[in-house]
Amino acid sequence: MFRFKHIGWAFLLIGQTGLGQNKADSLFIRKIFDSALTQSRCYEDLRYLCKSIGPRLSGSPGAAQAVDFMETVMKRERFDTVFRQETMVPHWVRGSVCTVKELESGRNIKACALGGSEGGQAEAEVLEVQRLEQLDSLGEKAIKGKIVYFSRPMEPRHIHTFEAYGGCVDQRWAGPAKASKYGALATLVRSMNLREDGFPHTGSMTYDSLYPKIPALAISTEDATWLSRQMANRKKVVIRIEDNSRTLPDTLSHNVVGELRGTEKANEFIVVGGHLDAWDNGEGAHDDGAGCVHSIEALRILKNLGYTPRRSLRAVMFMNEENGLRGGKRYAFLADSLQEKHVYAIESDRGGFTPRGFYVDHNNPEEVGKVKRFKPLLEPYGLHDFKKGGGGADINPLKPQGTICIGFVPDSQRYFDHHHAEYDTFEHINKRELELGAASIAALIYLLDQYTP
Amino acid sequence: MFRFKHIGWAFLLIGQTGLGQNKADSLFIRKIFDSALTQSRCYEDLRYLCKSIGPRLSGSPGAAQAVDFMETVMKRERFDTVFRQETMVPHWVRGSVCTVKELESGRNIKACALGGSEGGQAEAEVLEVQRLEQLDSLGEKAIKGKIVYFSRPMEPRHIHTFEAYGGCVDQRWAGPAKASKYGALATLVRSMNLREDGFPHTGSMTYDSLYPKIPALAISTEDATWLSRQMANRKKVVIRIEDNSRTLPDTLSHNVVGELRGTEKANEFIVVGGHLDAWDNGEGAHDDGAGCVHSIEALRILKNLGYTPRRSLRAVMFMNEENGLRGGKRYAFLADSLQEKHVYAIESDRGGFTPRGFYVDHNNPEEVGKVKRFKPLLEPYGLHDFKKGGGGADINPLKPQGTICIGFVPDSQRYFDHHHAEYDTFEHINKRELELGAASIAALIYLLDQYTP
Repeated sequence: MFRFKHIGWAFLLIGQTGLGQNKADSLFIRKIFDSALTQSRCYEDLRYLCKSIGPRLSGSPGAAQAVDFMETVMKRERFDTVFRQETMVPHWVRGSVCTVKELESGRNIKACALGGSEGGQAEAEVLEVQRLEQLDSLGEKAIKGKIVYFSRPMEPRHIHTFEAYGGCVDQRWAGPAKASKYGALATLVRSMNLREDGFPHTGSMTYDSLYPKIPALAISTEDATWLSRQMANRKKVVIRIEDNSRTLPDTLSHNVVGELRGTEKANEFIVVGGHLDAWDNGEGAHDDGAGCVHSIEALRILKNLGYTPRRSLRAVMFMNEENGLRGGKRYAFLADSLQEKHVYAIESDRGGFTPRGFYVDHNNPEEVGKVKRFKPLLEPYGLHDFKKGGGGADINPLKPQGTICIGFVPDSQRYFDHHHAEYDTFEHINKRELELGAASIAALIYLLDQYTP
Repeated sequence: MFRFKHIGWAFLLIGQTGLGQNKADSLFIRKIFDSALTQSRCYEDLRYLCKSIGPRLSGSPGAAQAVDFMETVMKRERFDTVFRQETMVPHWVRGSVCTVKELESGRNIKACALGGSEGGQAEAEVLEVQRLEQLDSLGEKAIKGKIVYFSRPMEPRHIHTFEAYGGCVDQRWAGPAKASKYGALATLVRSMNLREDGFPHTGSMTYDSLYPKIPALAISTEDATWLSRQMANRKKVVIRIEDNSRTLPDTLSHNVVGELRGTEKANEFIVVGGHLDAWDNGEGAHDDGAGCVHSIEALRILKNLGYTPRRSLRAVMFMNEENGLRGGKRYAFLADSLQEKHVYAIESDRGGFTPRGFYVDHNNPEEVGKVKRFKPLLEPYGLHDFKKGGGGADINPLKPQGTICIGFVPDSQRYFDHHHAEYDTFEHINKRELELGAASIAALIYLLDQYTP
């Protein structure tokens, strides 16, 4: 067992760019990466989560199995403490039937219900819109009795694909409520996917309690492109929709937490987490099985290298990120109640791809700088992207207590090919990329623990 | 039509890091990436090359079709000139039979002949070695009549996987000649693959004309791990090998060259290339269909944006990189003969993955610096890795005439999963990653053309 003293602190502030490299830190980070690349268990744990458990939407049997499994994994690793946090979660169940047929051509359009959508049937003319505001100008006269089709594609010119997602997802999230307000019978949305393929991508949406809960479905990008072409070429396109998804009463579920106890400041915490729930149509490999096993592996590496943390380190498997965020909120509530001081929270929820950097969710450039100063130590491992940016949905509820939230940023090009779709399977995880992610996070935890006064 | 003047030159040398950003350059590079991400043809061209032509080892019908196709593509793009360069190439043909069976267990080991291997049969005890030098110490007494199995895995601790390849490939390249020298009947080598899977990976090897041409095969990493375990647990492991590959007489083939004529210095060239030949067991999607379509797309983007090059720009589809390098040598020979001054040569032969940077093959740090100064303009697109490093096998023959060779560097984590194996198919190409690669290369060509006096 060993601990590095603060010898690196002063040195880190020296040098041409205001950053130096501490030799002992460099060597320890090299050990972290060596460990990840030669002795990891994250890939096999993820295989089990994806292949033996699979879909695990909140409230499902898969989610309960995933809670058990992750508890077992962290006990296997002999973390100092492993415990559950109870939380009630929404319980939406995808229907056994989901069909979308264009009547004139007879084409069966590949579709899936959005999470939270109530089932129903509709047969009506399609009204295509590209922006939510169009509904306000079109008004009830044009919309009533129609099926509204939101067709704006993700903008391919963004280099970071999450920006393309952010610029597009309003159609999915807010479209159904707004269309229902003007009397639409159902909504379709072009899947949030930059690729043209045959997979519909689900995701959360909302209703307005003042208006009917109409069926809301996503269609594959290939079908969306086809449908828009039909709309452009024909006067009238009629579609028949049937779906029997439904929402059951809230049910009990859990976050799972594993902890390595701090030796100097045991009631100060650095947490790292991913979300354990995953949409029911895939295996949740990149979203977010990867983030779960990243988190456990990061602590596992530090423990196995004999690192004695100053603060308590936690890996948190959050429940219900996808359709409620109940786990993230519950975690923050308990942290507040128990007066646990969370100094840093790191989230991995952008997939298991090759690491690129970390984003710091803070308006004060000084806080961003405190993370960015580690860049010279992490650049040899391919991490160059350190800047202000989102931390993650599950750790956001910790922000009011002053926690600095950090998002792990892997390469984003492939992420939305998989996101919320049947295509998000274990086969699309590369073992080395996953391991490099876990090592990157372990290295950051180590540095934050060492260099935070 | 427009051209940027040299207004950026002085500005580029100013600033905190010795680098500034010229506004016009930034804007033009943004246009390059926009064009690639919204109007490219590289992905569909690659689909045709992989799916309609497929395997295209030198001398094969596929190679001839690929030459025709690439000529057609560059003519379709209305490059100023499109022409072929004749070159004789080796003509090795994989056999219809390739079996490796372990006799006691009856296990069929997944194997493929190495490129250039002569067919034959052998049934003999296996001798496992990890390093070539072991053969010298073991000597003829231990080796004669055996099947030598080279089992050293690629070193997973390297962050850049090409370093792991470089540290391992001597077994494949030089193993058969050395084993034959001491009387071995055949050789097996663990596939050059960091992943454990069932795909054997081929690749080139050499014989020594003094000794017999014994069959030389690669086995999958899963089978290699299994075989090493058998060797550790048993006194004697006997294997039967059969393969009927053979080498035919050299045959005529071609490089294909497309050119955009320079307006100031038409006899000075900046070339970018990939190799058109690909191993016969896969589709050559990453190796190196990606590099071919990168090269054409890079010139296509510049042309379609109305860029008027100062120097002549060429996209070169090199033939026979995999097992002879005849095309690369022929290209350099003709460049010398015709007194064409090649200022810069860029090669893309590391796959179609997300871009990371460029390596400059020069011992003078000043030459490396001339490329590295562009880093601030390319970092917004994810390119951070600018340093001394290999350019590429096909452009190396230009070095004696003083050409600065540059290698395009995409992320390397997944490359060797695909390299020289059945797994190198079009399905594993991501359209955006491919497009970002083409744009990165186009941006570099533009900058080199603008800022080279």
